[in-house]
Amino acid sequence: MYPVSNMTNIAKGLEGVLFTESKLTFINGSEGILTHLGIPIQEWAEKSTFEELSLALLDGELPTAEELAKFDAQLRANRAIPDKLIEEIASFPKNANPMQALRTAVSYLGLFDPQSEDVSQEARREISIRLIAQFATIIAAIARAREGQEIIAPRADLTHAGNFLYMLNGKEPSPEQARLFDIALILHADHGMNASTFTAIATSSTISDMYSCIVSAIGALKGPLHGGANEQVMVMLDEVGTPDKAEAYITKKLDNKEKIMGVGHRVYKYFDPRSRVLRDYAAMVADKEGKSNYYQILETIEKTVVDRIGSKGIYPNVDFYSGTVYSDLGIKKEYFTPIFALARISGWCASVIEYSKDNRLLRPDAVYTGLTDQHYKDLKDRQ
Amino acid sequence: MYPVSNMTNIAKGLEGVLFTESKLTFINGSEGILTHLGIPIQEWAEKSTFEELSLALLDGELPTAEELAKFDAQLRANRAIPDKLIEEIASFPKNANPMQALRTAVSYLGLFDPQSEDVSQEARREISIRLIAQFATIIAAIARAREGQEIIAPRADLTHAGNFLYMLNGKEPSPEQARLFDIALILHADHGMNASTFTAIATSSTISDMYSCIVSAIGALKGPLHGGANEQVMVMLDEVGTPDKAEAYITKKLDNKEKIMGVGHRVYKYFDPRSRVLRDYAAMVADKEGKSNYYQILETIEKTVVDRIGSKGIYPNVDFYSGTVYSDLGIKKEYFTPIFALARISGWCASVIEYSKDNRLLRPDAVYTGLTDQHYKDLKDRQ
Ligand SMILES: CC(C)(COP(=O)(O)OP(=O)(O)OC[C@H]1O[C@@H](n2cnc3c(N)ncnc32)[C@H](O)[C@@H]1OP(=O)(O)O)[C@@H](O)C(=O)NCCC(=O)NCCS
Ligand SMILES: CC(C)(COP(=O)(O)OP(=O)(O)OC[C@H]1O[C@@H](n2cnc3c(N)ncnc32)[C@H](O)[C@@H]1OP(=O)(O)O)[C@@H](O)C(=O)NCCC(=O)NCCS
Repeated sequence: MYPVSNMTNIAKGLEGVLFTESKLTFINGSEGILTHLGIPIQEWAEKSTFEELSLALLDGELPTAEELAKFDAQLRANRAIPDKLIEEIASFPKNANPMQALRTAVSYLGLFDPQSEDVSQEARREISIRLIAQFATIIAAIARAREGQEIIAPRADLTHAGNFLYMLNGKEPSPEQARLFDIALILHADHGMNASTFTAIATSSTISDMYSCIVSAIGALKGPLHGGANEQVMVMLDEVGTPDKAEAYITKKLDNKEKIMGVGHRVYKYFDPRSRVLRDYAAMVADKEGKSNYYQILETIEKTVVDRIGSKGIYPNVDFYSGTVYSDLGIKKEYFTPIFALARISGWCASVIEYSKDNRLLRPDAVYTGLTDQHYKDLKDRQ
Repeated sequence: MYPVSNMTNIAKGLEGVLFTESKLTFINGSEGILTHLGIPIQEWAEKSTFEELSLALLDGELPTAEELAKFDAQLRANRAIPDKLIEEIASFPKNANPMQALRTAVSYLGLFDPQSEDVSQEARREISIRLIAQFATIIAAIARAREGQEIIAPRADLTHAGNFLYMLNGKEPSPEQARLFDIALILHADHGMNASTFTAIATSSTISDMYSCIVSAIGALKGPLHGGANEQVMVMLDEVGTPDKAEAYITKKLDNKEKIMGVGHRVYKYFDPRSRVLRDYAAMVADKEGKSNYYQILETIEKTVVDRIGSKGIYPNVDFYSGTVYSDLGIKKEYFTPIFALARISGWCASVIEYSKDNRLLRPDAVYTGLTDQHYKDLKDRQ
């Protein structure tokens, strides 16, 4: 009989476990504060661009005007994807899940990048810039191909957000639409050690290549407990149907101990500040154009949830309002999670780069609760 | 000024952090003990087969003869891969890293599996069986295509190990070769919360699909600190050249604070029991056929490492001898890590299935060490 572990202090879900240092993102979940490089998310959303925030995260500091101009030019120059990848995407089965398609396309792209096996800091940064640029083209191509539409080549004269909407919808967005989408990208660009970023880091901790890290992150983001939530919120809104049915719908779900999508968060135990930025936008639209059906349902759900389980720390998270914003921009819900990836690619890359500066293999442990002291039994001696 | 975290007790690399319970694998690193379902790895290696161990891990118990026969028949029946995947693999660039190819191929396979989005326990188990079977075919196909050889279809009349060697080398292995390879697969099938298994679990913790979990794991296994090590051992043996140069080579590396591949382990601080099984085999071959050059170099390296840094808990790990075993079987070192995946797929699937029975989102945290209380500066105000 050998000794089994007697340490039974299990950190389920690794909640509260600190495994590294980071200078990128700070979250105070009880007060609903989120900052990147010490600057509140509200200021980033109001004053910056996705391009600038991406560069600031990659390099860990606010860029100069010159650095930003160079980075922006690099992004624009790197938007095109190889013809082989376009053919590959066009050949994917139409009914394939778009996140499975994204995972496969990015993995495939890695096969053709002569730099992909280079794990130096410089190479990781260069690959990151290309991935940030190419994610937009890949995601738009996947959506177009799935919808049976022609794939549209990127344009270098538009912003990152504007060009994406152009490639997705086949027509140039208004400046307001492009800016709104830019804000949504800013809000989703990074969020500390969330499950997908953590999975990217876990992969990189074996000194694996950048493509492997990002492919892993895509797989983790795909799950409904993480990136899949805003799509589920739209499903819920459609199920509810009309605002007068919202309260009863939520009450019944909570009574049945079912989870409401778009509320609750591992870190925020109060309003997610990103949800406030998006709600303010939604309220502004409602003021101008009257309250949409979705908006009224969301209002009622928010109130019901906060009344019923706000005391458990369950409040709307960023996904609660983001779906309706995307929906207003003419985006189908199947593409919400890929669009989350379009934003989070910056946080993934920046976090892998930061972690790999002082890498340590990620290798936790489990408490063994199985049988001890067994021996192999011949098949004929088993019942 | 908002409060920053004052918890600075960082669990670097999550070393020693217990995040879940498991009944599959027990490791006692200081005594060099490894068991699956309480049965020592030596007994599995001696008496069982890769098929049986895989099923035992998937279901968490020793199968009956009938259950094993059914599982074996399922594996045999599921060896073929879709024609589209064969074409895809054949079209990969010849110089692509085989693990990038495997990552892409498995991701691609997911697009064609109508069951891939089903995350129920039953579906996860069925997908696992297909993946275990198909990994052999995919890996052999990748190797053949890269070497410019014709891809060989699987045969249903051979064991899992025997069929793989047949598909890889284009000729049926001897019973001894097939059994030796079977033992190598057994030794690598599972190993607790290693980095790739942990990455698979991190992905699955968002309730993502099985393909995403396995694709993530492939990416993590790829890194030289994990699955890439046995390939690096062979590089080292070739660098050393002859046994008389081994001691000086290692001494110089250690003096330069460089890492020796194939030694050291996060959990084992003594001989890895798997390395003993393989060394016994290598010694047996040496007895029969005389000591090979590789074997003599390994002997000297082992002695030098244990003398110099054994006191730090650095001893040979499983990768130290596995490369020469594969090499004896005519396998090129580029395919060692994919072969590690061929074995570990069972542990990945079993661990995801076990974790998802009582899932909790994996979301640790980082200590924030960056700037606080900053504000967005206009570009023109930055220097
Ligand atoms: C994000 C999430 C996984 C975080 O979960 P967590 O930190 O593991 O929190 P727990 O599951 O421990 O929840 C604590 C309590 O709140 C309840 N709760 C959590 N999220 C809830 C939700 N979305 N709806 C209803 N109740 C919820 C739990 O049932 C639990 O109640 P109990 O203490 O009575 O058992 C979870 O809130 C969730 O599933 N939310 C919906 C999905 C979503 O919107 N994800 C996007 C996040 S950006
Ligand atoms: C597997 C591995 C990543 C585990 O590392 P870890 O648990 O993080 O251990 P640490 O890096 O903290 O090492 C502890 C000490 O041993 C030394 N050490 C660890 N592995 C060593 C190696 N392979 N060669 C030489 N010294 C080594 C470290 O330098 C450190 O010395 P120090 O205390 O003087 O600084 C590491 O041993 C390694 O890189 N091994 C080679 C790769 C390999 O074979 N991997 C396959 C594992 S199955």
